[in-house]
Amino acid sequence: MSDSVRRRTHGQASRQAFVDATGVLLRRQGYAATGLSEIVARSGAPKGSLYFHFPGGKQELALAAMEHTGEQLRAGIAALLAQPGGAAASLSRLIDVLAAGLEASGYRDGCPIATVTLEASGTEPVRLTAERVFSTWLAELEAALEADGMEPGAARRRSLMVLAAIEGGLVLARARRDTGPLEAVRDELRELFGAVPAG
Amino acid sequence: MSDSVRRRTHGQASRQAFVDATGVLLRRQGYAATGLSEIVARSGAPKGSLYFHFPGGKQELALAAMEHTGEQLRAGIAALLAQPGGAAASLSRLIDVLAAGLEASGYRDGCPIATVTLEASGTEPVRLTAERVFSTWLAELEAALEADGMEPGAARRRSLMVLAAIEGGLVLARARRDTGPLEAVRDELRELFGAVPAG
Repeated sequence: MSDSVRRRTHGQASRQAFVDATGVLLRRQGYAATGLSEIVARSGAPKGSLYFHFPGGKQELALAAMEHTGEQLRAGIAALLAQPGGAAASLSRLIDVLAAGLEASGYRDGCPIATVTLEASGTEPVRLTAERVFSTWLAELEAALEADGMEPGAARRRSLMVLAAIEGGLVLARARRDTGPLEAVRDELRELFGAVPAG
Repeated sequence: MSDSVRRRTHGQASRQAFVDATGVLLRRQGYAATGLSEIVARSGAPKGSLYFHFPGGKQELALAAMEHTGEQLRAGIAALLAQPGGAAASLSRLIDVLAAGLEASGYRDGCPIATVTLEASGTEPVRLTAERVFSTWLAELEAALEADGMEPGAARRRSLMVLAAIEGGLVLARARRDTGPLEAVRDELRELFGAVPAG
């Protein structure tokens, strides 16, 4: 490996280490509580390279971490929804996966975007990034529901409901240290999907 | 008014001003971003009396503010649910009230408890207070659903779903600066309540 390639590879590894560390901290404790020194310590990357990769400092890092964790979760949602059996069954599996992950992390790893949204939605670049990430998740849900035969308007409304219920279920589950709220959401969504309007 | 009564009255007014200011700041920006000097400035109360009323500092203030805003919202939920027309219609009105309040505040005033829960659920007194406040809201919802004839187990599950969907709807609405997610939750809940299981 030439020196310049090695430097570039190290540089990319450091950049990704900063992004990963920021993603974990934003998910667990949010934006305001997360300081640059904590990010550097968790990343294991050289402190001196932080401003080289992220001249915009903490906000630029936070946006990159939100995009990165958001894309990971989008891909996970897409993979689950691509399984056979229909969207409603896939959503039950998605909620079970999220509940298991939350419990395994000692109720620390909830949604990687929600905490930052609630704290920092007054900071327009943060809000716009949160909006964009949520939109990528909603697009996956909508596409799966339309593939199941739902009309676009109904699929859009149902997707917002599904994501809202999951996000709120994660909030309540963290407050209670109990996956019960997510299980309730899963079972109620199953009822909503299986239900026929009475009117 | 005697001097001692006047002092006590002033003291209670200062205490409440600190609690109110903390409640607004926790709701808008969360726990980590809220400093004691910002609380004092917003309260208009004398800085010197802060540690007299709250020797435990910021955490004690935050718990008092969560209890206070939580009780205000519980009373609001109870009042709406007490209106005639059944729980489902009352819940639609509750969501419309929350959406209007969020929009009127420039998308700053969401749930007073959720932000702190997501940031600070690792701090056990904060988590326990969040759990307790959510439980008081859930108890109102469950009682209303049972009064409508729902079995206790079903009412418990439905209440968790309703609260989760509203909490998540507030997160998405803040990210999008748009009440659409709350309207979708309202309409989907109406369908869930009106629906007959297909199976």
